[in-house]
Amino acid sequence: MFSGEYDKALAGLILANSAKELGMEVSMFFAFWGLLLLRDPNKNITKDKSSLEKLMGAMTPKGPDELPLSNMNFSGFGKKMLEAMMKKDATPTLSKFLEGAVKKGINLYGCKLSMEVMGFKKEELIPEIRIIDAKDYLKDALETDIQLFI
Amino acid sequence: MFSGEYDKALAGLILANSAKELGMEVSMFFAFWGLLLLRDPNKNITKDKSSLEKLMGAMTPKGPDELPLSNMNFSGFGKKMLEAMMKKDATPTLSKFLEGAVKKGINLYGCKLSMEVMGFKKEELIPEIRIIDAKDYLKDALETDIQLFI
Amino acid sequence: MFSGEYDKALAGLILANSAKELGMEVSMFFAFWGLLLLRDPNKNITKDKSSLEKLMGAMTPKGPDELPLSNMNFSGFGKKMLEAMMKKDATPTLSKFLEGAVKKGINLYGCKLSMEVMGFKKEELIPEIRIIDAKDYLKDALETDIQLFI
Repeated sequence: MFSGEYDKALAGLILANSAKELGMEVSMFFAFWGLLLLRDPNKNITKDKSSLEKLMGAMTPKGPDELPLSNMNFSGFGKKMLEAMMKKDATPTLSKFLEGAVKKGINLYGCKLSMEVMGFKKEELIPEIRIIDAKDYLKDALETDIQLFI
Repeated sequence: MFSGEYDKALAGLILANSAKELGMEVSMFFAFWGLLLLRDPNKNITKDKSSLEKLMGAMTPKGPDELPLSNMNFSGFGKKMLEAMMKKDATPTLSKFLEGAVKKGINLYGCKLSMEVMGFKKEELIPEIRIIDAKDYLKDALETDIQLFI
Repeated sequence: MFSGEYDKALAGLILANSAKELGMEVSMFFAFWGLLLLRDPNKNITKDKSSLEKLMGAMTPKGPDELPLSNMNFSGFGKKMLEAMMKKDATPTLSKFLEGAVKKGINLYGCKLSMEVMGFKKEELIPEIRIIDAKDYLKDALETDIQLFI
């Protein structure tokens, strides 16, 4: 998960939850903008951050509900529309799919380098993630049957 | 195919057609914006649609020719430029690659959940697609040698 | 590598370099906007190009340093911010990761069709690439354990 967009995160989490329900083992590795999905909206850590890291934290979406659409976002209108359509069809929100992933035991990993560069601390992300690096991800990916870059 | 953009759809369809020509079995699963590629430009169904679903249908591109570029679109100028350059090189248009995929017997699947949420009916998409869900896709993907999220 | 964006190219090259360091064989196939990463900023060939091809060459980024961000670019401000944060953390720039890929012997391929359509000549791209087509890419991908579309 590289992207920090509501619709792409939805695609990733629906596939992950569905795969887990089919009995597959599933891991998600969040890097760059993908980390925004894992932010806990109630935590806003500024201690031990540089000015740029504070600015990055303030400028970017805090958790699943704040992510924009990748397409047709229209300053948030398109996203409100999609959310209304999902509600009407009783499709769970992105937050619910993330909660589902946690409950089902999907492995959630945060990218060490991305966190360092963007200045995100482990304490401001959801507690269920483990921090790994690109090599750990690759060693894991090598053993899998399906890999997707989203 | 998650993206609803001309250049990404071109990349997906060129790979799919080339793979089929090499004798591989090829399946394409269209979800979210990817469904826009499958819309039949001559069909515009509004019956049994909510206001939001009608709006979604009206606001989004109808079929391959209307898709924007993912990059350098410049309100359509970049796309016209790319189309002119493709024509000069005698590269087929996106529509032609889609027709090729149909003729060659590439399996084309529409995502059930995406169609429900976005309000697209099977009758307004090209007739050659079959509607499946994420689990069907995953079971199929598990048996493949190459999977790409585009 | 389909995308011509700094952050996505960074993700691709970090994974490629890390995989090579782990002893894997790595190939990168650059198509469409991905070719922009391979442009040599010091070469600007206009000979034997149509007006549109010259315009495409002039309008698009020349090499790794000029690529925009996929997200939060804010007319270049977001990118400057990311570059400053990377520098502070002593993370190499995109150019350095590309140099690393060349030095480590990662196979770099340019897409023949994309080059023809966009009008890029081999002489204006970095010399270490080989030009192949989609079928060559697919035959190679078929033998691999991990494939990502970035």
